[in-house]
Amino acid sequence: MRKHHDVEIYSILTANQDDTFVTNEIEEADLEYGGIPGDLHFGLTKFAGSRESMYERGTEIFNRRQISIVSVEECALIAEELKVEQILPEWLGANIALKGFGNLTKLTPGSRIIFPSGAGILCEGENLPCTQPGEVIQNKYPDISRLTTSFVKTSLGQRGIVGVVECPGKIVAGDTARLILNHTAD
Amino acid sequence: MRKHHDVEIYSILTANQDDTFVTNEIEEADLEYGGIPGDLHFGLTKFAGSRESMYERGTEIFNRRQISIVSVEECALIAEELKVEQILPEWLGANIALKGFGNLTKLTPGSRIIFPSGAGILCEGENLPCTQPGEVIQNKYPDISRLTTSFVKTSLGQRGIVGVVECPGKIVAGDTARLILNHTAD
Repeated sequence: MRKHHDVEIYSILTANQDDTFVTNEIEEADLEYGGIPGDLHFGLTKFAGSRESMYERGTEIFNRRQISIVSVEECALIAEELKVEQILPEWLGANIALKGFGNLTKLTPGSRIIFPSGAGILCEGENLPCTQPGEVIQNKYPDISRLTTSFVKTSLGQRGIVGVVECPGKIVAGDTARLILNHTAD
Repeated sequence: MRKHHDVEIYSILTANQDDTFVTNEIEEADLEYGGIPGDLHFGLTKFAGSRESMYERGTEIFNRRQISIVSVEECALIAEELKVEQILPEWLGANIALKGFGNLTKLTPGSRIIFPSGAGILCEGENLPCTQPGEVIQNKYPDISRLTTSFVKTSLGQRGIVGVVECPGKIVAGDTARLILNHTAD
C-alpha cells in the first residue's frame, strides 16, 4: 500500500493572457494530455530553452512542465522570509495551489495527484525558481528593495513542482485530491 | 553547470516478438516520442496495470515506462548475489544497457541521457522489480531454486530505470552518451 495524503485543491489557475505568465483563477479545468488547454504551458512538446540547455535552443522536446503546482503553505513561508504581506500563487504562474501538504516541493518525482474525477498528474520534480516571478513580486511591493533576486534565493526548495497530465479529466477548485507518494524514495 | 558523466551505450535492445517481453540486441534505433517504434512498451499512452493501481485497471494513461535502461555493472552485481553466471539485459526486457555508471538505479528523476545525435531520454526513476524477469532467469538456471522470487528481492535498487523520450533521434550501440544529473537532488 502506497503512502498517501488528502489535500485540498485550494485554487485552479491558468495563464490565458497573451502578454504574461501570471495566471488567473478559474473554477475548474479539463486536463488533457499536455496540460490545461489554452494555458501558456499547454502542449505535449515545447521548445528547449535555458532550463533545457542540454539541447540546442529551440529544439522541440517533450514537455515535462505542463502543469505548475504550489502549496499555500510554502507561499506563506516565502512571503514571511521576504517580509512581504503575501505571495499569491498567480504571481508564480501556478496552475494549481494545494493546501494540506506543506512540503510540496520535496515531493518525490513519480508521485501522483489523483482527483475525484479520476484525473491524475504525475510529479516531475521541483520547479526551480527564476527571476520572472521575482519581477512580478517586486512590482507588487515597490518599496522593498531587491525582491527580484531575493525571491530566487528564498524560494529555492519551496517554489513548488512541475508535472505532466498522466490521466485526463476534470479538476475542480475546492475538491479534495489524493497525493500518492512514490515509495521508491523511502 | 550541471554534473555529467560519459557512459558507453553497451547495447540497444527491443522487445519485437509477440510472445515475450524479452528483448533482442539491435545495432541502432530511431527513438520517437513514445519509445522505440515496434517495441512492446512503445507508446505515448499505455493502459493502467498493477503498477498504476491508483487508476482503474485498463484506464488509458500517459506512458512513463517507454524505455527501460539497465547498467551492466548492476546486472553483474545481481548475478553475483544470485550466485549465477550472468544476468543479461535482454532477460530483464531492457532497451538500453549502459556501461560506466554503475549506480544507475539511483539516478535522480529529471536526469537526462543525451546521445551524439542530440536525442535525449528523461529519467522517470527506478524500475521496480517484478517476477516476470525472475521467471526467465529461473528457466536459464533450472538447477538453482527460488530464483524467481529471489530476483525480485535482490534486484530492488539495482534493476535500472525507466524513462521517456524527451528528444527523438538515432541511438547507436557502441556510442558514448552523456548522463546529465538532475542537480535538484544535491
